[in-house]
Amino acid sequence: MAEKNAYNIAVVGATGAVGKKILQILEEKNFPINELKVLASKRSAGKTIEFKGEEKTIEEATPESFNGVDIALFSAGGSVTKALANEAVERGAVVIDNTSAFRMTEGVPLVVPEVNKEDIKDHKGIIANPNCSTIQMVAALSPIKETFGLSRIIVSTYQAVSGAGDHAISELEKQTEQYVNGKEMEANVLPVGSEEKHYPIAFNALPQIDVFSDGGYTQEEWKMINESKKILHDQELSVAATCVRLPVFTSHAESVYIEIDKDDVTVEDLWKVLESAPGIVLQDEPSKQVYPTPLSSADKDEVFVGRVRKDPDKANGFHLWIVSDNLVKGAALNTVQIAQSVVDNNWL
Amino acid sequence: MAEKNAYNIAVVGATGAVGKKILQILEEKNFPINELKVLASKRSAGKTIEFKGEEKTIEEATPESFNGVDIALFSAGGSVTKALANEAVERGAVVIDNTSAFRMTEGVPLVVPEVNKEDIKDHKGIIANPNCSTIQMVAALSPIKETFGLSRIIVSTYQAVSGAGDHAISELEKQTEQYVNGKEMEANVLPVGSEEKHYPIAFNALPQIDVFSDGGYTQEEWKMINESKKILHDQELSVAATCVRLPVFTSHAESVYIEIDKDDVTVEDLWKVLESAPGIVLQDEPSKQVYPTPLSSADKDEVFVGRVRKDPDKANGFHLWIVSDNLVKGAALNTVQIAQSVVDNNWL
Repeated sequence: MAEKNAYNIAVVGATGAVGKKILQILEEKNFPINELKVLASKRSAGKTIEFKGEEKTIEEATPESFNGVDIALFSAGGSVTKALANEAVERGAVVIDNTSAFRMTEGVPLVVPEVNKEDIKDHKGIIANPNCSTIQMVAALSPIKETFGLSRIIVSTYQAVSGAGDHAISELEKQTEQYVNGKEMEANVLPVGSEEKHYPIAFNALPQIDVFSDGGYTQEEWKMINESKKILHDQELSVAATCVRLPVFTSHAESVYIEIDKDDVTVEDLWKVLESAPGIVLQDEPSKQVYPTPLSSADKDEVFVGRVRKDPDKANGFHLWIVSDNLVKGAALNTVQIAQSVVDNNWL
Repeated sequence: MAEKNAYNIAVVGATGAVGKKILQILEEKNFPINELKVLASKRSAGKTIEFKGEEKTIEEATPESFNGVDIALFSAGGSVTKALANEAVERGAVVIDNTSAFRMTEGVPLVVPEVNKEDIKDHKGIIANPNCSTIQMVAALSPIKETFGLSRIIVSTYQAVSGAGDHAISELEKQTEQYVNGKEMEANVLPVGSEEKHYPIAFNALPQIDVFSDGGYTQEEWKMINESKKILHDQELSVAATCVRLPVFTSHAESVYIEIDKDDVTVEDLWKVLESAPGIVLQDEPSKQVYPTPLSSADKDEVFVGRVRKDPDKANGFHLWIVSDNLVKGAALNTVQIAQSVVDNNWL
């Protein structure tokens, strides 16, 4: 296909937490758009949304919606992706999907552009955007792996409610108000909307994100384990995860332990690698209380790293604290960056 | 000393978050008290406090306060302990101290009764109560160590604001109200009152508890590392910690990775050990969404353990989620349990 100057873009799930961020970032980054379609479920069809000062009418997403679309950005849940992604591809669109539907499918590139942009060119129509908690972790660890090798990751997450969508955001807001007004907190959404039991998230921490699966791990934990190996092209890498939801609106934080392939590396060596890594900002000055937090990282594009320490006992072991806005780099921005890589390299 | 039926008890720091809990637990457990002195700073002297339906007048803690006292329970901060603990010992009292002042001092037993009660009998007047985040972790890991051996601990904590005292509790309440009312959140207390910078804790997570120290670790992290080795009588044990403060009022949670000395142990084997361990409650049924949380553990005496999983790659590696009320087992209850062990065994 000849290179174009502007592209027909469809955003599927335009009314959701991630879809709204995608539109905002397409606008901010001045993505080369010829025509923009904003698609959602039948329920939202007919509503309007503002983009670059113009009112756009939301249309119901159907197979025909993708006629003439160059790039379709999906973030409407796994079932919508499964129903419509292949329809979009058949009509000539490249799909960049934010759900877990095709992430582990053989032949579907799973991409964090700073890490494995080149994988995009092998796509067969669908490119998957990794899980939010995976993206920020591999973005920070990939440059370390490139420089010093990497054999092991143990991660404990501190994840924001916005990762569970708009209903979870509302639930934290509502429970917080209930608490402040001395009322009992009502739980209907978290940890997982479709599960039987719900627990309050306000002033709490829930060690369940997504449903439980093999070996007592949750799906979210398996996503971090399997996706990290796929993105980093290393099936031998040991990865273990414990995923925990917090009463935080925006940004995931991660306490990460790694083992590298060298015994003589210092914290300063790691700092040097992180400082020059694309998309990474080092915030690590303990003497000045400088380290990233969810609030300080919100609405920012980068992945922030601090608290880099050598393990007290293991010469090749290090601990890091990795924080990023889960809706920005963890979802919408990474999606738009994949789209940008597609058009920049003519990988349509 | 001959065994008594009832003891003269002093509570130092009776107006603080832990001191109030100590009084509550002494009352609930019907501790054998002859005379109770409630001591605090000059500022609180003259105020009254209720104990077993009686008004007790708070006195200023001075060296003379300890004349005739059998057991003095200190929780008024390290400087008060340093100023008065030896004065109390000289006057014949056994001091059980909740601060970090003497925890690592040679000859001072550091005790979690379920783990190392016998250490109490070697005391020279002062017995130290460990750090809250250490207590719950070693309570759960000690029975595992006894049964299968233990070579390594990597812990990431999820700690409640009440561990930083009443001012931190008020700060989270105030910031929450400010947020709900659309105002900017004011930060004056956390992460550390005496430090230069303060960050909001509401809807945030702060990877700093206590001040920074060697190797980029905080004092809280070193406490977990050093105290665990002392309590478990194992200087060879590898321990690393990342301590994080959350917008949670009560109960600390911990994501803990351990390596044991055997490769053929199953999750069921670990469950069996934990189920029969003193002070431990196993809450681990993923299929029924059963696991402990800070809210579900608040105001309870036990240490709750869930999410027990075998590491995906390491045959001797396991992950656990350990939760307990940081003011109860993490502080006041453990202190009272030490006092109970002292009187039960005539270790005065």
